[in-house]
Amino acid sequence: MPKPLPPYLGAAYYPEAWPVETIDDDIARAQELGINCLRVGEFAWSRMERREGEYDFGWLHHVVDRLGAAEIAVVMCTPTATPPAWLTRRYPEVLALSADGRPYGHGGRRHACPASPKWRELSAGIVSRMAAEFATDPAIIGWQIDNEFGCHINESFSQSAITRWRQWLRKLYGDLDTLNASWGTELWSQYYTEWDEIPAPVQCGYQHHPSLRFRWKQFMSEMYAESCREQYGILSAAGCPNVTTDGMPNFHRLDYEDMFRDLDLIANNCYFPPEQYAGIVGECDWMRAAKPRPYWFTESATGWTGGGQVGSLYLPRPGSVRARGWLMTALGGEMVLYWLYRGHWSGQEMLHGSVLHPWGEPTPGAQEIASLGEDFVKAGDFLRNTRVPGPQVAVHYHTPSSWILDHEPQVPGFQYDRCLNESFHRPLVEANILRDVIWSGGNPRDYKVLFTPFMACLPAEVLHEILDAVREGLTWVVGPLTGIRSEDATRFRHNALGDLEDALPIRVVQQFPATGIDPPVIWTDNCTRGKATLWCDVFEAEDDAAQPLAIYESGPAAGKPGAMTIDFVGGTIKLLGFLPDPADPGWLRRILADAGVEPVCQATEGIAVVPRIGASERGWIAFDWKGLGGHAVIPGAGTDLLSGAPVCGVLSLFPYDAAVVREEP
Amino acid sequence: MPKPLPPYLGAAYYPEAWPVETIDDDIARAQELGINCLRVGEFAWSRMERREGEYDFGWLHHVVDRLGAAEIAVVMCTPTATPPAWLTRRYPEVLALSADGRPYGHGGRRHACPASPKWRELSAGIVSRMAAEFATDPAIIGWQIDNEFGCHINESFSQSAITRWRQWLRKLYGDLDTLNASWGTELWSQYYTEWDEIPAPVQCGYQHHPSLRFRWKQFMSEMYAESCREQYGILSAAGCPNVTTDGMPNFHRLDYEDMFRDLDLIANNCYFPPEQYAGIVGECDWMRAAKPRPYWFTESATGWTGGGQVGSLYLPRPGSVRARGWLMTALGGEMVLYWLYRGHWSGQEMLHGSVLHPWGEPTPGAQEIASLGEDFVKAGDFLRNTRVPGPQVAVHYHTPSSWILDHEPQVPGFQYDRCLNESFHRPLVEANILRDVIWSGGNPRDYKVLFTPFMACLPAEVLHEILDAVREGLTWVVGPLTGIRSEDATRFRHNALGDLEDALPIRVVQQFPATGIDPPVIWTDNCTRGKATLWCDVFEAEDDAAQPLAIYESGPAAGKPGAMTIDFVGGTIKLLGFLPDPADPGWLRRILADAGVEPVCQATEGIAVVPRIGASERGWIAFDWKGLGGHAVIPGAGTDLLSGAPVCGVLSLFPYDAAVVREEP
Amino acid sequence: MPKPLPPYLGAAYYPEAWPVETIDDDIARAQELGINCLRVGEFAWSRMERREGEYDFGWLHHVVDRLGAAEIAVVMCTPTATPPAWLTRRYPEVLALSADGRPYGHGGRRHACPASPKWRELSAGIVSRMAAEFATDPAIIGWQIDNEFGCHINESFSQSAITRWRQWLRKLYGDLDTLNASWGTELWSQYYTEWDEIPAPVQCGYQHHPSLRFRWKQFMSEMYAESCREQYGILSAAGCPNVTTDGMPNFHRLDYEDMFRDLDLIANNCYFPPEQYAGIVGECDWMRAAKPRPYWFTESATGWTGGGQVGSLYLPRPGSVRARGWLMTALGGEMVLYWLYRGHWSGQEMLHGSVLHPWGEPTPGAQEIASLGEDFVKAGDFLRNTRVPGPQVAVHYHTPSSWILDHEPQVPGFQYDRCLNESFHRPLVEANILRDVIWSGGNPRDYKVLFTPFMACLPAEVLHEILDAVREGLTWVVGPLTGIRSEDATRFRHNALGDLEDALPIRVVQQFPATGIDPPVIWTDNCTRGKATLWCDVFEAEDDAAQPLAIYESGPAAGKPGAMTIDFVGGTIKLLGFLPDPADPGWLRRILADAGVEPVCQATEGIAVVPRIGASERGWIAFDWKGLGGHAVIPGAGTDLLSGAPVCGVLSLFPYDAAVVREEP
Repeated sequence: MPKPLPPYLGAAYYPEAWPVETIDDDIARAQELGINCLRVGEFAWSRMERREGEYDFGWLHHVVDRLGAAEIAVVMCTPTATPPAWLTRRYPEVLALSADGRPYGHGGRRHACPASPKWRELSAGIVSRMAAEFATDPAIIGWQIDNEFGCHINESFSQSAITRWRQWLRKLYGDLDTLNASWGTELWSQYYTEWDEIPAPVQCGYQHHPSLRFRWKQFMSEMYAESCREQYGILSAAGCPNVTTDGMPNFHRLDYEDMFRDLDLIANNCYFPPEQYAGIVGECDWMRAAKPRPYWFTESATGWTGGGQVGSLYLPRPGSVRARGWLMTALGGEMVLYWLYRGHWSGQEMLHGSVLHPWGEPTPGAQEIASLGEDFVKAGDFLRNTRVPGPQVAVHYHTPSSWILDHEPQVPGFQYDRCLNESFHRPLVEANILRDVIWSGGNPRDYKVLFTPFMACLPAEVLHEILDAVREGLTWVVGPLTGIRSEDATRFRHNALGDLEDALPIRVVQQFPATGIDPPVIWTDNCTRGKATLWCDVFEAEDDAAQPLAIYESGPAAGKPGAMTIDFVGGTIKLLGFLPDPADPGWLRRILADAGVEPVCQATEGIAVVPRIGASERGWIAFDWKGLGGHAVIPGAGTDLLSGAPVCGVLSLFPYDAAVVREEP
Repeated sequence: MPKPLPPYLGAAYYPEAWPVETIDDDIARAQELGINCLRVGEFAWSRMERREGEYDFGWLHHVVDRLGAAEIAVVMCTPTATPPAWLTRRYPEVLALSADGRPYGHGGRRHACPASPKWRELSAGIVSRMAAEFATDPAIIGWQIDNEFGCHINESFSQSAITRWRQWLRKLYGDLDTLNASWGTELWSQYYTEWDEIPAPVQCGYQHHPSLRFRWKQFMSEMYAESCREQYGILSAAGCPNVTTDGMPNFHRLDYEDMFRDLDLIANNCYFPPEQYAGIVGECDWMRAAKPRPYWFTESATGWTGGGQVGSLYLPRPGSVRARGWLMTALGGEMVLYWLYRGHWSGQEMLHGSVLHPWGEPTPGAQEIASLGEDFVKAGDFLRNTRVPGPQVAVHYHTPSSWILDHEPQVPGFQYDRCLNESFHRPLVEANILRDVIWSGGNPRDYKVLFTPFMACLPAEVLHEILDAVREGLTWVVGPLTGIRSEDATRFRHNALGDLEDALPIRVVQQFPATGIDPPVIWTDNCTRGKATLWCDVFEAEDDAAQPLAIYESGPAAGKPGAMTIDFVGGTIKLLGFLPDPADPGWLRRILADAGVEPVCQATEGIAVVPRIGASERGWIAFDWKGLGGHAVIPGAGTDLLSGAPVCGVLSLFPYDAAVVREEP
Repeated sequence: MPKPLPPYLGAAYYPEAWPVETIDDDIARAQELGINCLRVGEFAWSRMERREGEYDFGWLHHVVDRLGAAEIAVVMCTPTATPPAWLTRRYPEVLALSADGRPYGHGGRRHACPASPKWRELSAGIVSRMAAEFATDPAIIGWQIDNEFGCHINESFSQSAITRWRQWLRKLYGDLDTLNASWGTELWSQYYTEWDEIPAPVQCGYQHHPSLRFRWKQFMSEMYAESCREQYGILSAAGCPNVTTDGMPNFHRLDYEDMFRDLDLIANNCYFPPEQYAGIVGECDWMRAAKPRPYWFTESATGWTGGGQVGSLYLPRPGSVRARGWLMTALGGEMVLYWLYRGHWSGQEMLHGSVLHPWGEPTPGAQEIASLGEDFVKAGDFLRNTRVPGPQVAVHYHTPSSWILDHEPQVPGFQYDRCLNESFHRPLVEANILRDVIWSGGNPRDYKVLFTPFMACLPAEVLHEILDAVREGLTWVVGPLTGIRSEDATRFRHNALGDLEDALPIRVVQQFPATGIDPPVIWTDNCTRGKATLWCDVFEAEDDAAQPLAIYESGPAAGKPGAMTIDFVGGTIKLLGFLPDPADPGWLRRILADAGVEPVCQATEGIAVVPRIGASERGWIAFDWKGLGGHAVIPGAGTDLLSGAPVCGVLSLFPYDAAVVREEP
């Protein structure tokens, strides 16, 4: 039988919840809707293993076989997010504990402690069995490990976790002298004389030491990543294809740079409403940048969401689901799955939008999926043969720094994601500048302009790579709040910004929160006025290579520079001591213009255009995400593969419409 | 000595807190104020039984005897809401536990676990002793069991409770296969292989299974009801008259249909300020409908309330306390007791309004009570000889459905009581339509029009009884959110509304939350425009018996019906898929008019008129609850028993005044 | 070497956090800035005693010696706010427990239970060692015990605490009959038959008995005070000079009247921004009144604060830090220390303003400190030779009453400190009336007018002393909410105000909350209209000595008096039944005028003038705290010691400027 080709379009399916006779109906309906991919097995451990050692995969083979026969690709999931009741009753030591020492009992999900050796063993057991059963099944195109590591619960205070925590610290620091010196434990009598004195951050008088909290966060993130890698090892060794896990970065705050490092591809769940364009783009931009192959959206909302109770809830406007599907694909994806296929008739997520109603009939969203499916058939070859060209601009996203700033937000109201988005990523999106969101390991040489705000902890090797890139011509926009903490989340004893300050011909001479005053600034490049928000560093130049880029007009540092332009050998560094007012991104546009960065094209607000290039063909994907319709000036001519119409210069779109223009010479 | 006759007017009295010599003063004061009923013994266990087995009822006999001699009726209470310190120290196993496993220790009230066998035994002990002492005391006209079951604490996670919970489930389902199938436990690996795996809803990863939560709620409610029944059995067997317990429905959310089933009469505590007319009416309407005999208000506020700390706090406007007393009585009550008689000088409730100040002098509220007492003397015979005639309209109130919707409110902001009141009960009250609030066991044949909104779980026998009544002419207004869940709180696999949808010639073809759009609708019966709020079902008729009653004007179901009129053999069903805008109840008035339901009479807003009929006399009770005064057109002529004035046609009332018009031919 | 003289100016210094070689730099910098005092040792237990019994004071001797050599006075602190990790691991029984029974583990501060005998022993151990090392060190001018007792945690539910609690109650009441009778435990079956039945206020059904809660609060406060006294005993016996502890009254709510009774002087930490003038004045007014010698400010903010995370955060306006320093000193202080000297590079308080940046350079605040230091040099003799003359007016502050009202605030929104400040203390400050804030033990004979609001529990001996003072001419302004509770926090059985009502020729005949109506009142002394807020007592005169001072104009007590003027032998009592509208303090000004109380002088709003008198010289200290500048009419002539300019009559100040005018005849 022929295997379906990407792009994959479909949903999560839970056949374990339904009588076997309804499965054929569901498959037939999927075919009618143009669905070519279903994701199965996600939480079905107690169906695969009713009692310890009593395995039953027959029902799942049946499902996979029927799907294969129907030319529907299968993504198989490991069910480790939901240990069965018999398991946690028999092995209570695997339960995660909350900070107050109480177990998360059976009844929800994700209640296993990722640091528990017994849990690792039991996980490996079920995963190995699944691999043995399904590794080579031709219907299966990929594997999802677990589900949303860190969702609901992202730390555990079990005895296993605390034991492992101390081992982990010992491995990290070698000896207690080093730990004490690195954390600065002399204050508040926090000095440790034995490893066993080091607590997990459970209840204490006031708050815990920031270095301890930072390392704990990193430790727990590593435990999840390590669990994931263990499953990857088993599945990969057994020959399972395309093994990944499904992330949800803003929500879970684990270090995905670590978690996805060894996985085959990036997958993500995205519940932004179609109208939250910048949010969805942000997801696409890091997924595309993180691995050199198309990413997967393993979950998205077909219509209204709601979780088990009432969570985020929205009704997509007609046409917008299709437009969002194009957005997810155009920027580098090859899979759009919705959650869920047939609505649940029981359990914690009955109140969630779905493709089919629980009684088997299509929901309104289903029609849009069908329509997207038709698009994918028409544009499939083009999508498979092209990719998004490398952007000239990138923004750094650094989860460990977000942990530091989450715990010590410097000023009230600071939120890592929101501030990064509003002042840096969103202005790029709105200016139609193609951009990557990169982790600390991303290559700065790939870009003309790199933004590095809020990277509180700027690892030395990252700094040096960036400076090398600057020497080769990169414009580096750095700060505010970048480089303010050591790798142990402490401040520095000799200056404000550590290695960064040492490397540049400037000194920080003053620091204060902008809260309550938001001092006005003058941008020296065009003498316009702006506003410093959040935090204010005040600089002094150490030589002429450093010139003021912005000067505080009033406030405690009136007349002194709050941002610098630094000629750094071959390139330019723009050092920001404050967060520029997100409402006025003119400063950023001038930097891009100076660096020669151009927008993709001119277009009505709400029309996005994504270039695509391939070995033998090229073109543009355009879609309207605001629902108002409009026009884009395409720098070329071609045919819209969706409508079949010729396009030359101006491309017009109806509300929420999409076009895939293959250039023709 | 002559026994006082109803209506009973008085308060709760705590003689255990006062030196014996003040009791005579307090009784004399009560007589001056026209008080003819006091409620005693409520929390006095440690005074009745100082140490285990050391009983002393002498002081209480003294109080009851003195009250009897003063012709003040006594309501005797069992003190089981407050176990003594010696008891919980000696039998810690009787303590209720919070969900985090911590006991509720001695120091407040209601800290015993209703599922504890030892607690049941100890409760039975004190209650039996009280019965032996007081069952035949001629001064005692009734008994109150415990106080406000479910107040403060309405669940317990003790080992006794969890053991009993599993027994209870086993009795309910018989075997685990049935439970697993009924709850749909295949999802999230929630399948149970042993009864002991089933948890109580303590901390878990994310939330618990809705079926488990629903059953747990029902289980705990039954434990309270069972405790109550056990006390009832003892008291009743001993010959105690008028045995009941005091409820507070909106606050405690236990299933009172179950709890009051076997009790002798309905009693309730009501702390609505006089101005919250619709709220107080709502209480009267269910109490009157629930049992064919006058109900009791065992508590109400004389003036400001406040609880021990600062709770709801209001100052009644002069005259309004008397007006509220009339409201409570006119609609079918025969007792108005206030909380409390002489203000506490110690303990958790010092800051609470009272009839007497702690130092024994009357508060301002006392004068209104005296004035109400004079009224009751004048109108006593009429009140005893008449009752409220049966209304033509009823509204369903279904506590189990409220549990389901509390846990899964479908849309943000939904509150069972508020939505039921605002869109259904209050429009009836404001239109001067006499109405009952009935439980699921109420008889639909008693009414012309029955409203059944939000009855998420519509038991089959209830549905069939209603349909039978429709066949006999009932107009049934059903929905929204009625019939959406099985008796296990699951959805259905074959349709949206289960048996209800099966029984009617319609299909639900779409469902979505109204949140954020509140789509406009067109009422087809008069082509006016309305608004769909909360939730939207979309219907399709299966035959001509079903016609659109309202059509969505825009939104995801534009042009499709959101409410249906169904000719159902002899009667009419109005099926609502959305919650009509509470600000515009025109749709409801049209239904009532079509069904031939008439208001009691025309009256100025703020003037309520309640008809009363008896074997040999009839008339109307009228009162002003808004404090503005006004007029009512009485359909007849008679004499106002309070003022002695003749009334013919128009009755005029001063602010907060009342009139009892006995019809004269 | 010469010892520095007061006023002391400086900061807290944590040399344990820094390499020894930076200490000389820091000392040199301090000398440059005119700093003459540093506070050390505060949290450095684990540096002084690395492991149990391994003492090392060499490093601290080195620091103290260097400071002494630099003529910088040292305040030495005991480090008992931060037990080392080895200690709590070895002696877990010393940990404080939260009400839910969980220990406060190592990692923050203040996690030791003050009632633990082992903890007391361990504290005594380190304190004795410190005393042995440093008691006679000539560089040390004073000692601070612990740090902010009651900060973060102000109660502990450990087994030690509960055992001690019962012993404490037994000592207080002697026998259970007395306790039961005093608390009124008959209600809610709270009667105790054994001491061990009495709980600590941990989780119970609803809330705990108010008498129990009040006594628990008092007990815990005493445990902290007792801990403090034990350290005092050790240090004092060893010859340590000026032994105190640093308070923070509004925040910690311990009974400082008890805690500071035996200490050598009053010390306090004050984080009000300079602009919160009335707040800072309030601190100065109780510190000065509490002990007949200059008080110390052990902590204040140099610039922005923030705690470890983000707490209160403000940027002082230029000049305002110096002005605040003058405020703290003029009103009777001899020490202004800031927190902290060199900013932390690690630990929980990295984000806190400081005198030096972590990298050793001065912050902007440092310049103001230097300027204040110059002032202190110029005005030093005058400050040392004069003191603030005794005010004619005082306001009572009674922590035990605040506990009662905190727990039972009578009406929503009542806050002891805010209401006391807004309606009583602040009007005095704003009218330039010199005033004391006194504890219940303050001597009423020292004043012309005494305000006693909100003293819920008015001890008999305090009442009688005040009445004696009234007989000698005092005007006593008493109420509202004064005298409403017994010493066991109960109400009275015979009247509303207990001994107070018994002593005066009035009766309270009615009481109600003002909430929602705030009835208008007429002041009878000048027929102006005012507003009764919070609470309303209604009075009846028992003879002509009592005349209405204010009458309710409408509401439940229309026409009846809500405040009385009582001729009481030689003096006058103004009895308030309500809280006068804080926005209109005219009533208070008239009372002061009647009593012959005069303001210090006339001055522009924002200019404060404090008189100073000494044996041989006198004068005035003036400063501008609003930053607008202005003028004051000085009742005399002299020389401004800061500018050297002559002053005669009108003194003009620039924004935030200060002047010290020594009178010249």
